[in-house]
Amino acid sequence: MHVIDQTRLPHVFETRTIASADAMAEAILAMRVRGAPLIGVAAAFGLALAVARDPSEAAIERTVAMLRATRPTAVNLAWALGRVRERLARVPAKERAELAWAEAQAIADEDVALNESIGRHGLAILEREHAAKERPVNVLTHCNAGWIATVDWGTVTAPIFMAHDRGIPVHVWVDETRPRNQGLLTAWELASHGVPHTLVVDNAGGHLMQRGAVDLVLVGADRVTRRGDVCNKIGTYLKALAARANGVPFYAAVPTPTIDWGIEDAMGEIPIEERAEDEVRIVRGLDPEGRFAEVTIAPSTTAVANPAFDVTPAALVTGIVTEKGVVRAEERELRALRPRLSETSLP
Amino acid sequence: MHVIDQTRLPHVFETRTIASADAMAEAILAMRVRGAPLIGVAAAFGLALAVARDPSEAAIERTVAMLRATRPTAVNLAWALGRVRERLARVPAKERAELAWAEAQAIADEDVALNESIGRHGLAILEREHAAKERPVNVLTHCNAGWIATVDWGTVTAPIFMAHDRGIPVHVWVDETRPRNQGLLTAWELASHGVPHTLVVDNAGGHLMQRGAVDLVLVGADRVTRRGDVCNKIGTYLKALAARANGVPFYAAVPTPTIDWGIEDAMGEIPIEERAEDEVRIVRGLDPEGRFAEVTIAPSTTAVANPAFDVTPAALVTGIVTEKGVVRAEERELRALRPRLSETSLP
Repeated sequence: MHVIDQTRLPHVFETRTIASADAMAEAILAMRVRGAPLIGVAAAFGLALAVARDPSEAAIERTVAMLRATRPTAVNLAWALGRVRERLARVPAKERAELAWAEAQAIADEDVALNESIGRHGLAILEREHAAKERPVNVLTHCNAGWIATVDWGTVTAPIFMAHDRGIPVHVWVDETRPRNQGLLTAWELASHGVPHTLVVDNAGGHLMQRGAVDLVLVGADRVTRRGDVCNKIGTYLKALAARANGVPFYAAVPTPTIDWGIEDAMGEIPIEERAEDEVRIVRGLDPEGRFAEVTIAPSTTAVANPAFDVTPAALVTGIVTEKGVVRAEERELRALRPRLSETSLP
Repeated sequence: MHVIDQTRLPHVFETRTIASADAMAEAILAMRVRGAPLIGVAAAFGLALAVARDPSEAAIERTVAMLRATRPTAVNLAWALGRVRERLARVPAKERAELAWAEAQAIADEDVALNESIGRHGLAILEREHAAKERPVNVLTHCNAGWIATVDWGTVTAPIFMAHDRGIPVHVWVDETRPRNQGLLTAWELASHGVPHTLVVDNAGGHLMQRGAVDLVLVGADRVTRRGDVCNKIGTYLKALAARANGVPFYAAVPTPTIDWGIEDAMGEIPIEERAEDEVRIVRGLDPEGRFAEVTIAPSTTAVANPAFDVTPAALVTGIVTEKGVVRAEERELRALRPRLSETSLP
């Protein structure tokens, strides 16, 4: 199967062929494939590739464990792997290869529908903002929850694209999102769709909110607890604090598989991935001749910490935009979104 | 005269000869010379260079206006130029060249003494933190308020160096400080002095404070209002919000010339410098061969906003560390620091 190599974006659009679970694990680890919903789908296909070679339970267990270890924070990865594994356990080994592929495909197809529904519910928020203010709606987003982070649409970009397509003027402040600069992916997606946007460094969002330049913050999430705490790309929490201090609504847009029903204490129970130090020390881009190049901004002797996610407490979250509607970030409202037990098991 | 070219740091320590006010203006604009206290001193020497060529009042006016326009946000620049100009107005033209140079030198000498005093007052805060917690004191800083941003010592680094030299264990979380990455200058200074430190992206500070990894935030400032609002490098406000939300003290360390006694409304009256878009799009560092190189991370077609400073409201500030002592960020306490009128005039 093919994946877009997101490490080449926004400079080059390039796909890679993935022929094994190991290759899929490498692509997820290196963030060629990234975005909570997409890594769920990608991991499911990775498992399907492994099952085609060896459908034994032992092999399935090994592959699930290997794929799940690639990114510990996003819950979709564990959810998708658990869903495929559960189906496979019910059938004899010889039927598993076909079933695994069909189940991965089903997860992918469902993701498109989930994002489209999230888009419609998010659109209503943008429409209200526009109607209330009678001027372009200024959205600030952090990281990338666009169509390349999902199978299509994108949780954050779906409402923005839909609003833009309906003639609602939207402008997006795009956080750079150091150290991996996923904001550039968002800028690239918005540009492709013709949506006005402005790139800013991650430091700028508080200042913009103080000056009234942001109407709402809309981000994706890697895991939402049943109490409504939002775990998302490092730096999201700082924007949520600024939003609260300046009366700016803060929404997280997620498909319900991103909600982790098993966790009580977000700060204590969600593993925060610590990524490589060189992600901070080395910056990738194009050299003056337009070739991919890297520059070192900090010597290798400089100690670096690189936590990849943070937790925004539910108290700072105005609402969770899901495919089933927008709910407040609190256990009572979130509970109504909880699917049947059979859909929720984790590996 | 010679200045350190800070755009070559942390990679190469290199000085440049500055022979005219125009060359000094270029050095300030390009941030070869940067840091609120240092650009005050540098501008004073720039004016002295111009006066040596033409001591007329018209030439002085032109030079003051030209130098002052280089960086609109830091108040030290205007303060230092005003101080030199005021002295020059009192003497005949033929005495001005010598007097201008002597006054610039006096400002430089005083800055060293100011920073040393700030260091002693800040040291007391670090000593208290260490005594209370009986473990290394974790300081988070944003941007660079080190000795290279002043004439010597540095407003933020003075207390840290003094604590370290006295055997108080200090560890510093160093914000990268996009887009210009002045955090790397801070890391370089701390490494030179042997102070343990860890570089983090600007997004990480909130997460670190949530996890109890930060005992206090200590930053410099480009302008402090008489009400205690702190204007500093973009992103400072976000760290102040996180500090408040997590019960972490937030201090700004400044010499009193950084206090602007003439401003009431920080949000309305302090001009926020908007710098070049390419500062965000293009990242400078060393290529794999160790040569200076640049990579483009965002296409030139991507719109960029690059505000260089933000305002942290006094309500979020625990204290202002000055050469005269630590005061609360409020008008009544700050007023006690106000110098005689003759020292305060702005051009």
